[in-house]
Amino acid sequence: MATFLSEREIARLFERTGARPFWSRLVDYLARDFARWAAFDKSPRFASHSPGGVIELMPTSDGETFAFKYVNGHPGNTRLGLQTVVAFGALADVRTGYPFLLSEMTIATALRTAATSVLAARRLARPESRTMALIGLGAQAEFQADAFRRVLGVDRLRVFDVDPGAHEKFERNMASREVTITHCESAREAACGADIVTTITADKKRATILDETMIAPGTHINAVGGDCPGKTELSRALLLRSDIFVEYAPQTRLEGEIQQLDPAHPVAELHDVLSGRRPGRVSADAVTVFDSVGFAVEDFSVLRLLYDLAQETGVGTDIALTASPADPKNLFALLRAGPATADAPESEAFDFSN
Amino acid sequence: MATFLSEREIARLFERTGARPFWSRLVDYLARDFARWAAFDKSPRFASHSPGGVIELMPTSDGETFAFKYVNGHPGNTRLGLQTVVAFGALADVRTGYPFLLSEMTIATALRTAATSVLAARRLARPESRTMALIGLGAQAEFQADAFRRVLGVDRLRVFDVDPGAHEKFERNMASREVTITHCESAREAACGADIVTTITADKKRATILDETMIAPGTHINAVGGDCPGKTELSRALLLRSDIFVEYAPQTRLEGEIQQLDPAHPVAELHDVLSGRRPGRVSADAVTVFDSVGFAVEDFSVLRLLYDLAQETGVGTDIALTASPADPKNLFALLRAGPATADAPESEAFDFSN
Repeated sequence: MATFLSEREIARLFERTGARPFWSRLVDYLARDFARWAAFDKSPRFASHSPGGVIELMPTSDGETFAFKYVNGHPGNTRLGLQTVVAFGALADVRTGYPFLLSEMTIATALRTAATSVLAARRLARPESRTMALIGLGAQAEFQADAFRRVLGVDRLRVFDVDPGAHEKFERNMASREVTITHCESAREAACGADIVTTITADKKRATILDETMIAPGTHINAVGGDCPGKTELSRALLLRSDIFVEYAPQTRLEGEIQQLDPAHPVAELHDVLSGRRPGRVSADAVTVFDSVGFAVEDFSVLRLLYDLAQETGVGTDIALTASPADPKNLFALLRAGPATADAPESEAFDFSN
Repeated sequence: MATFLSEREIARLFERTGARPFWSRLVDYLARDFARWAAFDKSPRFASHSPGGVIELMPTSDGETFAFKYVNGHPGNTRLGLQTVVAFGALADVRTGYPFLLSEMTIATALRTAATSVLAARRLARPESRTMALIGLGAQAEFQADAFRRVLGVDRLRVFDVDPGAHEKFERNMASREVTITHCESAREAACGADIVTTITADKKRATILDETMIAPGTHINAVGGDCPGKTELSRALLLRSDIFVEYAPQTRLEGEIQQLDPAHPVAELHDVLSGRRPGRVSADAVTVFDSVGFAVEDFSVLRLLYDLAQETGVGTDIALTASPADPKNLFALLRAGPATADAPESEAFDFSN
C-alpha cells in the first residue's frame, strides 16, 4: 500500500503543523537537498507539446528515493474555468522500485516554489529586508507572501495586479496573516521602496514587468513568473546590471529570464551559494536576481516532507496503487475470474490474409 | 476528479465483462491503435538505473490522450517476497492537461502483453493452430494461455517450467478454463508438436530456451520473455532461419531477441503487417517470431479500454488526484490555514554570510 495525499490532506498537514513550522521545515528540506546537489540525477524533463499546451514528466532520484511529477501547462484553461497548471507526483523506493507516496502536487508545487524563493532570498536579500513588492496576484501570490512572512519576517507588502479582483482575493486570503498590505496602481509603484521584488505574472510571452529604472540599488528580485521558453518578466538591461542566481543553469538558460542573455553570461547556481563555493550578495548595493524556473529536486524535497509529515501525523489514505498478489508469480489468481464461457474455438478468428 | 482502478477493480471489470469479450475487446483496441501507429508520439522511455534494478517512465500520446506508465524491474525483489515488476499508469486529456484515469498497471500490463501476443499470432500463426507450448510458467503464463484460448481457440497447452511448483500453480489457475494441459519435462518436449511456442522465462541473461533443432517448420514463436538488454531466450541460429516481427524496431533492437543480430538484419513491424504494407506469414512452412518487448502504445490501449469499461459499468473510485479550487487563481484558499502564530520577524533568520 502507498500513501495518498489529496489537496484536503495537504491542507490538513499544513494546518496541523502550523504555517511557520511547516514553511521552516520545507525550507530546511530544500536546503539539505540543495546541499547534496551532486547526489541527484538531473535528467531533462520529458515534455509532450500540443497546440493547447504541454504535459511534462519531471523525474529525479538521489539513489535512495525516486520522485517524479506529472505537470501540465495549458494557458487556455482559464477560459474553461480550469486551472492552467495541475500536477501530481510520486515517490518510490529505489531499492525495490515500489512506489510509496502518491500526492496531489498543484498545492505542493506552490509550496515548494515559495519555499525555494525564501531559501534563495535568505542568502541574497539584504538581512534587514522587511518590505516585499508582489507583482502579479495569481495563484502563487499568497504562498510567496506567507512563506516570506513566516520564515523571514517580511511583513510589509506592496502589491500590484492588473485585475482589481485579484487585489480583493489577495487581501481576503492574507487577512489573518499579520502583514501590512499596500495596494499599488502599477508595478513601478509597487517596486518603489521594496527590499525584495517578487514577479509572478502569468502572461506567456516576453513581457517587461520590471525594468532597470524601477529597481533601487540593494534590491533582491525574486523572478518566479518567467519559467518557460518565450516567457520572461525582466528587461534585458535589468538583468545585465544584476548578479544572477539560478537553480540549474542548463535548464534556466532555456526557460528563465536569462534566455534573453548570451548563453555564456555568468550566473551562479543556488546550491553553490548555499555551500559557500560561490558568493551570494557581495554588497549592500548589489542588485540580485533569483531567476526561478522550478526544478525536480524541489519536488523531491516537498514530497519527502509531505510523506514524513503524513507518517508523523497519520494524515493520508492508503491506496492500492499497484497489485499485491500473495505470491508474486501468481498474478492471474487476482483476476478470480469465474468459469469460462462455453465458446467454441473459432478458426475464423485468425486473420490470415497475407 | 479522476477515476482510480486498483487490482480489485480491474478484476471486477474482467469478471463483469467476461473473459472472452474482455480479451476480444482488448485485442480490438490494440489493433485499432496499431493501425494508426503514425499518430502516436513514440518517445524513448525514461530509465533510472540503480544497482538493484531500473525505474522507468513510459509516455505516449496520440494527440488527444496522453498516457504514461511507471514501471520498475528489480530481479532481487523475489528474495524479499516482493514482485519483480510493479506498475501504475495514467491517462490525461491533451486538450486541458487534466489527468482522468489512474490505474494499477501490473495486471493491466500482463493483460496487454498477452493481448498483443494474440494480435500478432492472429496474423502470424497458421490458422489451424490449436496447440501452444508455454515455456516458463511465471506471472504472465496464464494470461497468455487464457487470451489465446478465448480469442483464438488455442485449447491444448504443452507446458514446461524448471520449478514443479509453477506447474501446480498453472494447473490450478487454469482448472476451469477449458484447456487440455500436458506437463512436459523440458522445453524441447513442450515445443514438440506445438503450432505456437510461447517463451516467457524470467532469467535476466542471455539464455537459450529454444534453439533451431526444437522448432518444426510452420511454427509461430511468441517470444515474450526476452525484453531488456542482455536478456534473450532464442538461439541466434533460430532467429536467422525465421521471419521476425517486432513492435517498434529501434526499441526491439536494444531490448529484444534481435539484439543478438546485426542491426541491419531485416525485421517487420507488426503495425505494417496489420495494415497490409508488409507480409506476415508467407507460407505454411515459414517459422515466424514475434519478438515482443512491450511498447507504450499497448499501455495506452489497455488504459483506454479499462477507462471505457469503468465508465460503462460504474466500477472504479473517484480520486482527487489534483487540486480543484473553486477559483483556479485562488489556490491558497484551499489551505484554509488558521490565524498565523505570533512570530516576530527574525532578522537572524537571514543567513548573510557572503
